[in-house]
Amino acid sequence: MTATRLVALDCMGGDHGPEVVLAGAEIARTRYPDLRFRLYGQEGPVRAALARAPRVAAEAEIVPVEGVVLGTDRPSQAIRRARTTSMGQAIEAVKTGEATAAVSAGNTGALMAMAKIALRTLAGIDRPALVALMPTMRSDSVVLDLGANTECDAGNLVEFAIMGAAFARTVLALPRPRVALLNIGEEDMKGTEELKEAARLLRAAAIDLPLDFTGFVEGNGIGKGEVDVIVTDGFSGNIALKTAEGTANLVTGLLARAYRASWRTRLGALLSKPALRALRDQLDPNHHNGAVFLGLNGVVVKSHGAADTRGFANAICVARDLVADNILARIGDDMASFRAHLPAETRSGSADAA
Amino acid sequence: MTATRLVALDCMGGDHGPEVVLAGAEIARTRYPDLRFRLYGQEGPVRAALARAPRVAAEAEIVPVEGVVLGTDRPSQAIRRARTTSMGQAIEAVKTGEATAAVSAGNTGALMAMAKIALRTLAGIDRPALVALMPTMRSDSVVLDLGANTECDAGNLVEFAIMGAAFARTVLALPRPRVALLNIGEEDMKGTEELKEAARLLRAAAIDLPLDFTGFVEGNGIGKGEVDVIVTDGFSGNIALKTAEGTANLVTGLLARAYRASWRTRLGALLSKPALRALRDQLDPNHHNGAVFLGLNGVVVKSHGAADTRGFANAICVARDLVADNILARIGDDMASFRAHLPAETRSGSADAA
Repeated sequence: MTATRLVALDCMGGDHGPEVVLAGAEIARTRYPDLRFRLYGQEGPVRAALARAPRVAAEAEIVPVEGVVLGTDRPSQAIRRARTTSMGQAIEAVKTGEATAAVSAGNTGALMAMAKIALRTLAGIDRPALVALMPTMRSDSVVLDLGANTECDAGNLVEFAIMGAAFARTVLALPRPRVALLNIGEEDMKGTEELKEAARLLRAAAIDLPLDFTGFVEGNGIGKGEVDVIVTDGFSGNIALKTAEGTANLVTGLLARAYRASWRTRLGALLSKPALRALRDQLDPNHHNGAVFLGLNGVVVKSHGAADTRGFANAICVARDLVADNILARIGDDMASFRAHLPAETRSGSADAA
Repeated sequence: MTATRLVALDCMGGDHGPEVVLAGAEIARTRYPDLRFRLYGQEGPVRAALARAPRVAAEAEIVPVEGVVLGTDRPSQAIRRARTTSMGQAIEAVKTGEATAAVSAGNTGALMAMAKIALRTLAGIDRPALVALMPTMRSDSVVLDLGANTECDAGNLVEFAIMGAAFARTVLALPRPRVALLNIGEEDMKGTEELKEAARLLRAAAIDLPLDFTGFVEGNGIGKGEVDVIVTDGFSGNIALKTAEGTANLVTGLLARAYRASWRTRLGALLSKPALRALRDQLDPNHHNGAVFLGLNGVVVKSHGAADTRGFANAICVARDLVADNILARIGDDMASFRAHLPAETRSGSADAA
């Protein structure tokens, strides 16, 4: 298994289809020559794109699948015909052990639903979470959950903290990431009961976990890079992620508008080009591409639908790194350490009506 | 009463104390010569600052109060000694009708708690909300709740929609603001039960309300200016507001760093100065200053603690405009129109444990 670096690719997802998927795989294989791919999708388009990806073609195998999950499909619809779709079969390959990970740029809701049903959650994990990186003034920070769970109890938040820290150890190469819960204030009394309880549990257990729990962080602490892992429910996490994206677009949009105001500022913009390019690069979601659906018996990576080839390559490399670092075993070990701190067999947290 | 434009000022709040409060009042009185002030605070510092604000001094009255609410005070502590503090007495003046509005740059939690107890909620309003403006690509948008209510039911969200629209009519001068609920997707099936129920109620009642309900908006829609009023619970609203602030700082910080990379970009930055100043101006919170605690029997405005004189002047002018437009009566009328759509006497929404 360790030598088997076979990644299942859903070639039909994303805004650009097989073209970007295979060009991305080509880049990934340059970085990691041991990577191999199984390609799920409509044979004609996949074969055409593969002709322009010689490194991938050298060892890839095409599994022809006619069905495609559309961006507009409801997860409930998509689940029913999972086996007839490229996305569903890519996930199935992880379930059977034929592939070590699946990568798709398709419909996020459908991918999460299919993956959850096919792979089921890791022992000790109640709810999987969607995790990704956000840019900060220091380096990137890990944020989860980004939308898999609208409501979460304290136990779920603890699981996310442990999973996020494991993710940060691999993706950010931090031996002991700083972890905080996203809240509307840093004082102990702020926030929901679930947050206070999660903080209590993490404070008690953190000493035996490979993470530093620093308490609460506010929304404006994300961009500062105050912590490495930001833990929140899927509703707030999604709001934070998308508000950050929208604000970055707002600021760069306002700047572009301000530059057009006069000849002086137009000339300034011209001379500033390398700086503006550097800024765009740092904020480019393709740098941070690859949201991972973490907490399942298998690695499933969701590439941004609009990702370019470099972005899709990053998503594949994240999948490869997580497998190489054995992240699922790490999470299992850390959850066991955490559970050793719980009194008797009780699971924590105030019950949260789903 | 209509001629009485007396605003109660808590002179001791904020990072800069009476100095900025009175300089701000001086600017506000230039804009609105009919404004008069009652000044609450420690007599020595207030009198010293007043000496540098001749327009205010011409008609102002000082009410000496020794007690000051500190930024670190818990709301529960502050409430107990409300009557001995400048903040508490400024609010009390609104309660007794001596002042038409109160403005403070002090401790937000204490201000909200004191105002809620002293002024109580408007008839028909269950929970007051903290409302403010956020910058967008088009103009500003109204966002609420920004932190007064950690958890909200559908009925609360409807109240916020109606209050936010009334606020937008005054502050943005929009006769029929577009209103949306902040959610993690635009499709009907997304989000919590509370959001779905609030959407259903607003859709049914919007025709008789002075607003256009457009459904759901995602976090990245805020910066685009897709709608005029964004409605959400106080937890998500606070996360969105602070994440936006943090991201704006991140982007401008990364830009400043990129400019320092070479002589070419340094020169570019120099020539770009007017554009960068315009950008800073548009993002300056002092432009959007004055969060209003809306839904009480009285107008209470919270200036940002770090606001400069211009920012504090804006907070005063917002208070003055809301009083002049009779916003409390507007909210009352709109709530009555909304209630006419409810079957019998039922109040909507799933009960939410506070």
